[in-house]
Amino acid sequence: KQLEIAVIPGDGIGKEVVPAALDVLRTIAEVHGGLQFTFVEFPWSCDYYMEHGKMMPDDGLQILQGFAAIFLGAVGNPKLVPDHISLWGLLLKIRREFEQVINIRPAKFFRGLQSPLANPNDFDFIVVRENSEGEYSEIGGRIHRGDDEIAIQNAVFTRKGTERAMRYAFELAKKRKRHVTSATKSNGIFHTMPFWDEVFAQVKQDYPEVQTDSYHIDALAAFFVTKPHLFDVVVASNLFGDILTDLGGAIMGSIGIAPAANINLNGKYPSMFEPVHGSAPDIYGKGIANPIGQIWTAKLMLDHFGEDELGSVLLKTIEDVTADGIKTPDIGGKATTREVTDEICRRLRQL
Amino acid sequence: KQLEIAVIPGDGIGKEVVPAALDVLRTIAEVHGGLQFTFVEFPWSCDYYMEHGKMMPDDGLQILQGFAAIFLGAVGNPKLVPDHISLWGLLLKIRREFEQVINIRPAKFFRGLQSPLANPNDFDFIVVRENSEGEYSEIGGRIHRGDDEIAIQNAVFTRKGTERAMRYAFELAKKRKRHVTSATKSNGIFHTMPFWDEVFAQVKQDYPEVQTDSYHIDALAAFFVTKPHLFDVVVASNLFGDILTDLGGAIMGSIGIAPAANINLNGKYPSMFEPVHGSAPDIYGKGIANPIGQIWTAKLMLDHFGEDELGSVLLKTIEDVTADGIKTPDIGGKATTREVTDEICRRLRQL
Ligand SMILES: CC(C)[C@H](C(=O)O)[C@@H](O)C(=O)O
Ligand SMILES: CC(C)[C@H](C(=O)O)[C@@H](O)C(=O)O
Repeated sequence: KQLEIAVIPGDGIGKEVVPAALDVLRTIAEVHGGLQFTFVEFPWSCDYYMEHGKMMPDDGLQILQGFAAIFLGAVGNPKLVPDHISLWGLLLKIRREFEQVINIRPAKFFRGLQSPLANPNDFDFIVVRENSEGEYSEIGGRIHRGDDEIAIQNAVFTRKGTERAMRYAFELAKKRKRHVTSATKSNGIFHTMPFWDEVFAQVKQDYPEVQTDSYHIDALAAFFVTKPHLFDVVVASNLFGDILTDLGGAIMGSIGIAPAANINLNGKYPSMFEPVHGSAPDIYGKGIANPIGQIWTAKLMLDHFGEDELGSVLLKTIEDVTADGIKTPDIGGKATTREVTDEICRRLRQL
Repeated sequence: KQLEIAVIPGDGIGKEVVPAALDVLRTIAEVHGGLQFTFVEFPWSCDYYMEHGKMMPDDGLQILQGFAAIFLGAVGNPKLVPDHISLWGLLLKIRREFEQVINIRPAKFFRGLQSPLANPNDFDFIVVRENSEGEYSEIGGRIHRGDDEIAIQNAVFTRKGTERAMRYAFELAKKRKRHVTSATKSNGIFHTMPFWDEVFAQVKQDYPEVQTDSYHIDALAAFFVTKPHLFDVVVASNLFGDILTDLGGAIMGSIGIAPAANINLNGKYPSMFEPVHGSAPDIYGKGIANPIGQIWTAKLMLDHFGEDELGSVLLKTIEDVTADGIKTPDIGGKATTREVTDEICRRLRQL
């Protein structure tokens, strides 16, 4: 299998963890004869913006379109470019234009990580985040200046988008513990969240074998901390999914390790793989960024290409290396980005 | 001091914890000669709705207007009335119509509570939540039916509302550790959150003695779990404040204990005091609801009436009783609502 991957390291630690994960992918290809990667790198980022006045070239999307997948690090450097410019010019633009309508984000108790929870139990859940609409929209604007200024933001929920995310969650749950939790806020968000609840009530009729429950986002966020083992698949809007998955990272022991996949379902465009964490400009350049989020993200890409078995081997290897204490400072270790990566590659070669 | 308080127990455990907190307030009045309460109770709730087709009478607000404060339990019983109907018909209506523009929600390491965090440290912060606008609005609606249905929700941020919440936060910080954290999401929420950031950047100029930082809500939620001791005063929009304060409750050890005050700043209407937790219909009627959230909320009401000293005594008493293990099952004890309340009253009488 010959796979052409577009690689966008992006900003900050993206430039450190993406090369690390590419080394791991190369090693996997080496070990597994049938798999071959070609990586084509694009420097699109806030630095690129400083030079060109845009986050990517005008034909950026066309260029990306031909690839089997996009492998992205992190975008954002608010010291150079306001976040809403950099993100909507690259990350969010790709998600939207390439109809990557679903964002998958697993979180689980991870051997060798120190969860901040006293009793982390054996939690293992996946958040299915609606990734194409909702609270993230460019619709809205401002009126008046000074004391009278008003900013308005529209959240847009379509039945198609909402239902699609929910069906994806139910299908996923059928392969897991058959339990879907809906993240709502229909007590406070007057129009869209009661709609969300209605669609959920309808969709679940088609999956009588799947258990369901529904919590308001405030309570649900709290439960992620107090009872994370309750969850199997959680379906959430764009914003709620964003918040819940950083919490998922936090209870694992670091947002530095949580992976994500932006899935295109209609096959017209490539899917994109990028970890949950951001560009962390404060630790960039020190060689100590945690590569696990990016490497686990590479595992999701392997799964996506039907290489689930390789994916499982990779995840187990990451966990073993972590459990053996070879880890970066953010998760209590002393290793560098390089050392963690090399150890993972070394073990993969021994398999 | 003679204070007339409107009491709305509301739904579910509100009907159990409000009477408990009233007993505590009566005891305080007994102990402290100068303070006298008159409590006038209103049965407005989902039960009321089932009988009258509305959450409160048409002149409900007029009736409430004359009181020194409103003391509320919890609203919501989705089995009887959809949440958006019950909440917008009572709780959110009062917040809005009475211009209770600020919602104050403290969270702190609490003796005797088992935090779910392995190392809870000594955190102690207050979330100042914008309480009058933002993501909570009745503006929006739906179009089309069936497969084509679309729901739109407008979030509305005014400079006045935003600035007011921020100034309140800075003034509060001046009396505390002089640190304000802004909860934003300007990387994803295109219009309103960059506006929020701009206002914050401007307001902070007026408080050079206060340190500031700003995190996106996803990262901030994670930090509430991994580094809660970092925070002093956190200022947040209506929705973000809602989520963060349930998290605040969770890391204390239970959302059953977090208190809140809805503050009217212009003196035209009463302020309202209600805990963060909801009506918990699942445990209602068993006599085991945790009264601490409601009693701590009574402390915020005492503070509001200038009785800070009494307020501090009350909080210390609650903490002592909890530390001595007299607590409800949700926080690892065996006591009933009544037993916890009686013990608090007993100790207050001994002072
Ligand atoms: C009941 C609900 C509308 C309310 C809110 O979201 O404001 C509650 O969660 C709270 O925090 O007071
Ligand atoms: C960078 C930001 C726009 C993005 C998001 O909110 O989607 C990030 O937080 C994520 O979770 O992928």
